[in-house]
Amino acid sequence: MKRIIDLSCSIFHQIPVFPADPAVGFMNHHSHKGAGYCVSQVIMGTHTGTHIDAPLHKIEDGNSIDVIPLEKFIGKALIVDLTYLNSGDEIKLANIVDYKDDIKKSKIVVLKTGWSKHFGEECFFTDFPGITFEAADWLSRQDINMIALESPSVHPTDHVRIHECFLKKDIVILETLCNLELLNNKFVELFAVPLKLKGLDGSPVRAFAIEK
Amino acid sequence: MKRIIDLSCSIFHQIPVFPADPAVGFMNHHSHKGAGYCVSQVIMGTHTGTHIDAPLHKIEDGNSIDVIPLEKFIGKALIVDLTYLNSGDEIKLANIVDYKDDIKKSKIVVLKTGWSKHFGEECFFTDFPGITFEAADWLSRQDINMIALESPSVHPTDHVRIHECFLKKDIVILETLCNLELLNNKFVELFAVPLKLKGLDGSPVRAFAIEK
Repeated sequence: MKRIIDLSCSIFHQIPVFPADPAVGFMNHHSHKGAGYCVSQVIMGTHTGTHIDAPLHKIEDGNSIDVIPLEKFIGKALIVDLTYLNSGDEIKLANIVDYKDDIKKSKIVVLKTGWSKHFGEECFFTDFPGITFEAADWLSRQDINMIALESPSVHPTDHVRIHECFLKKDIVILETLCNLELLNNKFVELFAVPLKLKGLDGSPVRAFAIEK
Repeated sequence: MKRIIDLSCSIFHQIPVFPADPAVGFMNHHSHKGAGYCVSQVIMGTHTGTHIDAPLHKIEDGNSIDVIPLEKFIGKALIVDLTYLNSGDEIKLANIVDYKDDIKKSKIVVLKTGWSKHFGEECFFTDFPGITFEAADWLSRQDINMIALESPSVHPTDHVRIHECFLKKDIVILETLCNLELLNNKFVELFAVPLKLKGLDGSPVRAFAIEK
């Protein structure tokens, strides 16, 4: 029996966003009473909620989100359990290097840290477990299409360099995943397909997994 | 060999929208030169480009887009070829009733009219082939989760009543599909998963099909 597991957070009016990112607003445009039907207007940043970073996010002549083949956003994902990390720990090469053979069997690496439980807390955007440069550099040399995280970015302070590490290799980054604790298997089929936003640097997504 | 076929139109700054719907705007928020990375801001209506109508679009106490199970947006789709219709023709019961047995084998019905070729023309939002009330009523009595269209709405003039026909039965409506001519098979696996926009009436989607 197939199970579909939603791995996305809700996007809502004034949802907390990464420091200095655009605020999110929902406005009613047509109402049932007025027009006979309801239409809303949404204003949001490209990195709102669960979202994908395209290479253009960091690389000036990198691919925008709309030109990346859909195959990049769909595939066999390895769930790397890092929930044993302590508060303040970084994700180091030693935490992931033993997964080398499992990574060879997959196209997406999901770093499960349990961080999504802090969504809504002040610390969410500042104190998350960052990936060290050494670990990111090693991951970027594996044959993968996507790196997927519960945190809102790759590193609290060294994020520009570590984004570049993945994005210059055309490895897209999926951020702010949730519900990973609902997955039973080490390998799942993961879908995180962005909107086709012409020329833009990223997109919110509805990420989900299929388990058999 | 699996093929993934993108069935979504690009969303771009000032993309044409349904009459009286919100205009779409893309704005640069952070730039590479300024912040060291690029973030954009998007303003758009919930029914922009390829999109899903939730029951709330028409039904005041209907389900919003974020509470509908993902199973509703993923499934075996029947492609009903109606490209033989002439300009000005409606989609009538007689055009679809013979597909009754095929519809029983699927959860999504795609009405392929070829209308997407008119995207960008003035007629796109006004002269598309509407579904008659009789045909919509019959379709809404079949065991399906979704009705999918190349046109931007269900009918040029009778759209409020025909939306209601589907949405009161919790059959979601996928509108403004394109690229259907790239599909080879009568049945495909279709994905049209909306953003998790809390409490809203619809969402743009990246719809795609998988063919084997």
